[in-house]
This record gives sequence, structure tokens and C-alpha cells, in this order.
Amino acid sequence: MLFKVEMDVNIPLGFDPQEAARLKAEEKARFQELQLAGTWRHIWRVVGQYANVSIFDVPSNAELHDILMSLPLYPFMTVRVTALCRHPSSAYEDDR
Amino acid sequence: MLFKVEMDVNIPLGFDPQEAARLKAEEKARFQELQLAGTWRHIWRVVGQYANVSIFDVPSNAELHDILMSLPLYPFMTVRVTALCRHPSSAYEDDR
Amino acid sequence: MLFKVEMDVNIPLGFDPQEAARLKAEEKARFQELQLAGTWRHIWRVVGQYANVSIFDVPSNAELHDILMSLPLYPFMTVRVTALCRHPSSAYEDDR
Amino acid sequence: MLFKVEMDVNIPLGFDPQEAARLKAEEKARFQELQLAGTWRHIWRVVGQYANVSIFDVPSNAELHDILMSLPLYPFMTVRVTALCRHPSSAYEDDR
Amino acid sequence: MLFKVEMDVNIPLGFDPQEAARLKAEEKARFQELQLAGTWRHIWRVVGQYANVSIFDVPSNAELHDILMSLPLYPFMTVRVTALCRHPSSAYEDDR
Amino acid sequence: MLFKVEMDVNIPLGFDPQEAARLKAEEKARFQELQLAGTWRHIWRVVGQYANVSIFDVPSNAELHDILMSLPLYPFMTVRVTALCRHPSSAYEDDR
Amino acid sequence: MLFKVEMDVNIPLGFDPQEAARLKAEEKARFQELQLAGTWRHIWRVVGQYANVSIFDVPSNAELHDILMSLPLYPFMTVRVTALCRHPSSAYEDDR
Amino acid sequence: MLFKVEMDVNIPLGFDPQEAARLKAEEKARFQELQLAGTWRHIWRVVGQYANVSIFDVPSNAELHDILMSLPLYPFMTVRVTALCRHPSSAYEDDR
Amino acid sequence: MLFKVEMDVNIPLGFDPQEAARLKAEEKARFQELQLAGTWRHIWRVVGQYANVSIFDVPSNAELHDILMSLPLYPFMTVRVTALCRHPSSAYEDDR
Amino acid sequence: MLFKVEMDVNIPLGFDPQEAARLKAEEKARFQELQLAGTWRHIWRVVGQYANVSIFDVPSNAELHDILMSLPLYPFMTVRVTALCRHPSSAYEDDR
Repeated sequence: MLFKVEMDVNIPLGFDPQEAARLKAEEKARFQELQLAGTWRHIWRVVGQYANVSIFDVPSNAELHDILMSLPLYPFMTVRVTALCRHPSSAYEDDR
Repeated sequence: MLFKVEMDVNIPLGFDPQEAARLKAEEKARFQELQLAGTWRHIWRVVGQYANVSIFDVPSNAELHDILMSLPLYPFMTVRVTALCRHPSSAYEDDR
Repeated sequence: MLFKVEMDVNIPLGFDPQEAARLKAEEKARFQELQLAGTWRHIWRVVGQYANVSIFDVPSNAELHDILMSLPLYPFMTVRVTALCRHPSSAYEDDR
Repeated sequence: MLFKVEMDVNIPLGFDPQEAARLKAEEKARFQELQLAGTWRHIWRVVGQYANVSIFDVPSNAELHDILMSLPLYPFMTVRVTALCRHPSSAYEDDR
Repeated sequence: MLFKVEMDVNIPLGFDPQEAARLKAEEKARFQELQLAGTWRHIWRVVGQYANVSIFDVPSNAELHDILMSLPLYPFMTVRVTALCRHPSSAYEDDR
Repeated sequence: MLFKVEMDVNIPLGFDPQEAARLKAEEKARFQELQLAGTWRHIWRVVGQYANVSIFDVPSNAELHDILMSLPLYPFMTVRVTALCRHPSSAYEDDR
Repeated sequence: MLFKVEMDVNIPLGFDPQEAARLKAEEKARFQELQLAGTWRHIWRVVGQYANVSIFDVPSNAELHDILMSLPLYPFMTVRVTALCRHPSSAYEDDR
Repeated sequence: MLFKVEMDVNIPLGFDPQEAARLKAEEKARFQELQLAGTWRHIWRVVGQYANVSIFDVPSNAELHDILMSLPLYPFMTVRVTALCRHPSSAYEDDR
Repeated sequence: MLFKVEMDVNIPLGFDPQEAARLKAEEKARFQELQLAGTWRHIWRVVGQYANVSIFDVPSNAELHDILMSLPLYPFMTVRVTALCRHPSSAYEDDR
Repeated sequence: MLFKVEMDVNIPLGFDPQEAARLKAEEKARFQELQLAGTWRHIWRVVGQYANVSIFDVPSNAELHDILMSLPLYPFMTVRVTALCRHPSSAYEDDR
């Protein structure tokens, strides 16, 4: 099942830069793991923001919840979740 | 260049159903033409709404404007445009 | 999978009362069918509003979309959908 | 009487983790006590948020107020309260 | 139980003045009936608006719902309901 | 003259509890003084919030301003003021 | 007593121009009557809007209400009322 | 040229009271200087808020900007600026 | 003096197309007249909207008001006006 | 390609003034570099705010993103990006 997830990241001024770098590296590793698994199907940056628009493909709401809550940068994120589904006009059966 | 475009469609109560059907068929045909051209890269329905989330890949802002303004259902749409770009964490060079 | 769906109904002043009564009867029948099937698990009225708060239990986002879009009163509704999941503190395994 | 209560929890970055764990354990114990008493009738997590949607069944506004204000995590919560009532279309007399 | 109810009235331009006058007279009669019964405890006009702030004292959420939905001017109102309770600082036991 | 005043109180996490208790006691004493004087005519708690809805009866805008600004908890409050007046439908001449 | 009143005027497309002209002339006459009486102390246009910012000086909330509700263009207005008072820093005792 | 300027002042809890008193005295002196010069034509307090509504009369946008940015309390203010102009209905040629 | 003016145009469905075309032609002619005079210094389309962002250079607020209110499409516009001034970092003395 | 970028700057009270001055000088230098390159085509101050309205002319969304994210004051900014395009009514072919 498909969801649009929009993540705005806000790391406070004065937060330890080394800790921030470590969390970003962990986030990137976790993202790539989920991307290769086909769960985190798309990610795009929002121009001018420390934010992304993502598409997730998950077997259930509960799994999406667990994935999002365990992201290394989650404590710094504002997250908006929107349930999506395939569009009948699409020429591609597996457009996800 | 990539853009997220969110379209909410609102056809007023009492609008002629045949005219609505004709416009929807035209919209679908135009969509598929743009999908096959690689311009309208993704489309998803928003659950519970007559609305979609789409990703466009266009050579310029002006071209995106011309495409959107000439959609058959544009007079019934509320449209939000957000400029996106490729995310550096992505494992796929051509993830669009 | 569980979703909170909030529906605000707005039938315009001057809408034909007989047609409104017919649509409300159809809506009620459709609701009861879905309630008995366990899909529309809960419904509550919002005090002072022509509106409800509902809990749906569906196998997929797509099925929820199809159910909502085909409700007889859908053209008069503003709908908000929120993905939910079971809470781990709950003492009831099947609390839905 | 039925109320929808939506609780968003925000524990600040840097809050003592042991104290947070203690408060969460207290919150869980208090929740289960109220759940077994039939007061806190339902609880669901909101996907991607540290938040829940709950249904309370209380004898009075004042009792709901006292319950909410004394929750161990209340100082970290944003709370929205909506008065509900039984829906006449429901097939279940005691649907709460 | 106490509720603050805020009602904004908007009768469209061009609505039949006689019908409007009839509905206002009915509304006034219904208000006074509820005021004398102690249900509609207070009403104040909002300066510069066709709107009021009211305090209701009702035995249940359901009764408040039924009262509001059957007001003669309800179809022209936007209504906001807020659950209240007695304030412990008040010197008056029965301040309602 | 009548005003609705809505006060939301927000004492920051970590504020000295003894100082908070002292300010609340002062606030309560000041409230009761104004209640007995007939100035602070009504106060109700908002369910689930550290907030109240109040009705003030004052000779002038300036006096209301001076009263509110000198409340012991004012520095922790968000305040909304709405000018009211007697409603002509009311059966009570002195309903304040 | 002083109030800021902000009035946005919206006469619908297609409203009879002669009737609109008549109402505007009545509004102007009523304004000037109130200006000369010292009640409508100031009026300024908002640049680019069919709107004004005004200062009223009235003996009571009720009088302000009656004045506003009887303005010839009131049915076309959105009105916002804010209670003001003299500023202690002002060098002018009678600055209104 | 006339502008409405609305200033909300928010001095954080715990800010040094002596420094606050010094800044307020400076602000008052600067205000009176501008009032006497005819630049800061009006100032009113907003009831229940640490805020004012002001009318400025300046030769240019740039001058207004320089005045506002150099106010001693500017770092504590939220400021909203609205361009105004004389209203043609006004009986006073020099109503500013 | 410089102002940012944002204009959203909304011509209702079913408005006479010939009249709309006439008004648009008049709007274009008026725009070009003001552009050549240096008053309407810049105009840009907002992608995906029937809307523009414009920069005006006018001698006074009043003149801007008169220009905007007399635009042929003004009755169909929502307009937002923001006062601007030259930025001191700019390398160009006459950057307008 | 053209974009409107609106930047609101908020340097917290108590931030080291020397560091702030250093960042502002760096920001100014970077701005002028981009202005001379024709990338940062326009900048205007918003009256009464520490904020600007700017027009960027960039070859791609990605380039705009990289420019904005690397501005020395970016960590203190709230940024809004709007895609623009040339307006067909403009008499100037190269109006940017």
C-alpha cells in the first residue's frame, strides 16, 4: 500500500555537529536499506527546505508507523502522512 | 526538472453529467499522452478525495505552466506546485 | 487496517427535500451493510454538527477509497482520512 | 457520554530518558486501569505521529476533565476534545 | 453539564424576507422556551456580528445535539461546541 | 459592559513548582475578589485544557485592560477578548 | 470607548449597479453623520482592497453593535471588532 | 503616507527586569519624539494584550522601515504593516 | 515607492466568454500602458495558477490604490499588497 | 528559470553579536556575488520586517536548492519558494 510521507527536518541551532553528522549518516543508511527493499520507493528534496517528499509502499499501516518512528532523525522531524492508491488512468499496472 | 503537483477537483453539484464525462475522458487522454512522453511521471489518487498527487518532469517552469493551464479539468481544479530535486541519498541515478 | 474518517455533510439550502431524503435513506442502508460486514466498525455523531467520526477496517487503501467515493452522500461531504494502527498499550488484542 | 480525545505528545529533546520512561510506564498503567473500567473505551495510534485518537465514555464533563488533567504525560500533551453522541443509523444499541 | 456554544448566522442575500422573519420569530420562541427551562442558561450577542455566545446546561451530549439540530435557524448557522465544567475557584456552588 | 475573555495558561516545564503554586494562589485570591465585586461575572473551565472561558462586566475597555494585565498569571496566558452585549431575545433584563 | 473596526466589503458580481450605488450613497451619508457626531472618529482605506480601517468612539458595546448592524452596506461586509484603550505613553490627553 | 502598524510585544519570561525597564523607557522616549514630529500619528493599546495599533504618516516606505527597525523594543516585536490611504467619504481634508 | 502586489484571478465558471475576453484585452492594454510608464515595473506568472506576482513603483499609497481598483479584472481578483523598499546590499543604485 | 524566494530571518535574542555580524557580512558578500552573476536578479526589503522578497534566475531546481541551502544565514531563515514564469503580456522579451 502506498503513502505519501512528507518530512521536514529541524535540527536546533547549537546541536552538537558531530552527533548531527552521526544521525544523518544513520538516516542515510536506513533510507538506503529501505529503498533497496522497495519500501521507501521514492524520495525527493523540496527546493529550499531541509525536507523531503517520499512515497512508501508497505504491507500495513502498522509497518509504516514502525518504520517512521524508528528513523534516526525522527525526533527532529515534522511528519505528514497521506494514504494514496493507484490511479485508474495510469497506463502502468505496477506504477508505484 | 521535477515538480510535485497536487490537484483537487471540484465539479459543482448540478453540472451537466455528459459534459463532465466528456471532460474527464479528455483529461484521461491528455494524461496518458503526457505519461507516455515521460512528462507526467507519476500519479496517485488521494484516498477519500477527488484529488491526485503527481510528479512532473519538465524542461522549464514555463512548460509546466502551459501543461497545467491547458488540462481539460483545470477550470475545476485547485492546484499546488512544489519544486523538487533529486535526493543525494538515493541509490538510483535516474530516480525520478 | 484501521482508518479514522471524519465526514462533514453539507446539503445546500434549497436542495430538493425528497431527493435529500432518498439519498439519506440510501446512505443509511449502505452504512448498515458496511457495519454488518465489519468494515465500518464505528460511527459517532459530532455534537451540534451534521458530521460524524468513523472508524473503518479495510484490507487496503484502495478499498477504502472505493467505499468512500461511492457513498450516496459523498458529493455533499468534506472527508478527512487519517491512518491509524493498534496501540500497544491496549489490553485487548482485537481492539478495533 | 462519549468524547473523542486526540492527544499529541511532545517530549522535548534532551529530556531525561529515565524520567520519560517512568512517566510512560505510569501513563500506560493509568490507561489500562481506565480501559478496564470502560472509561477509556478505545485508543488508536496515529500513523507516523507520537499521538493517539481515543474515545472516552464518562458520566460528566467534569470527570473527563479530571481524568485528562491527571494523566502522567499531560504536561507534554496537546489535547483536543470533541463531544460525540450515538449515531441513530447504528445497528448496535450499545455501540460505544 | 455545561457547554459553550457559539453560533454564527448567515442568511444569504436575496433570501425571502418574510420567510426569514418567520424563522427568526420561531427561533426566538424556541430560545425563550429553553431559557425558561434552564437549558439555554446564557446568551450574549457578539458586537458587530450576527452571532451569539451561549451557555447550555444539559443532561447529556445527545440532548444538546438534538436541541441544536432542531433550532429553526440551524440551517443558516455555523456552530462551535466546547465542553465546559465548573471552575473550582468559584465562590458560588451553583455558578452555571 | 460585557466581554468574553478566554485565557489559556501555559506554565513552562521546569518552572519552579513553589513559585507556580504561589502565583496560582494569588490568581485565585484576585479572581475571588473580582467575582465578589461582580466584575468577573462567570468563569468556566475548558474540558481537557488548562484554560477558562470568562465573562467580565466592566465600566470601560481601559478597566478591563488594567484588570487583565495585572493578573498574577498573566505572563503565562494567551488571552482573547471579545466584546459582547445583551441579547434582545433574553427574558431576563439583567442577564449578565 | 474606543474600538478598531475593520470592514471588508464584497458586493457580488451581477448585483444590480443602481441598487449598489444607492446603498453606497446611503452608507456615505450615514458615515458622515457619525463622523460629525464624533462617533466614527477615523476611517482609512486599505490599499488595493474594498475595505477600511476605522476607529469608533462609543459610550457602550451595545451602541457600537447597533451602529454597525444598521449600516446600509452591512449585509455585504465582513467585520472585525477589536477593543482598544488610550496608550499611557501618548502626549495627548484626548488622543482618540 | 499612512500606514497601520500593529505591534505585539513579547518579552520572554526571565528576561532581566532592569534591562526590560530600560528598553521600555527608551521606547517611550522614541515614541514621544516621533509623536511630536507627527510621524507616529496615533497609538492605541489593544485590550488584554501587550500590543498596540498605530498609525504612521511617513514620506516613504524606506523611512517607515528605518523607524520600525530601530525601535528599542523591535527585537521583541511581531509587526504587521498595512498600507492605507485617505478615505474619500471623510469630511476632513487632513484626516490622518 | 515599491510594492509587491500579488493578484489571483478567478473568473466564475459560466461567465460569458466574450465578456471575459474583452476584459482580458482591456487588462492587457492597461497593464502595458502602466508598464511603459514605469509604474508596473515587473510582472511574473505563478506556475500552475491564474495569478501573477508584480512589482509596482508609485509616488504614493493613494496612487497605487487608484490603479489597482480601476483594473478591468479587479472585480475578479484577490489582491495582496506588501510595502517594499530598496535593499542596502544591492550593488545597483536604481534596482527597482 | 525564475523563482520568487521569500526569506524571513530570525536571529535569536542573545545570539553572539560578533558571530551575527560575521554571518551577515558573509551573506552580503555571497548575495553580491550571485547578484553580479545574474542569478539573484532582484532583492527587496519587506517594510517593518527582517525579511526580503527576491527573484532568482537559475538553470535548474537543483541549483536553486544548492544556492539557498548554502547561504550563510540559511540556518536562521524561513524560506518560501514559488515557481514563476515570464508573463505573455509583458512588452519586454527579457523581463526577468
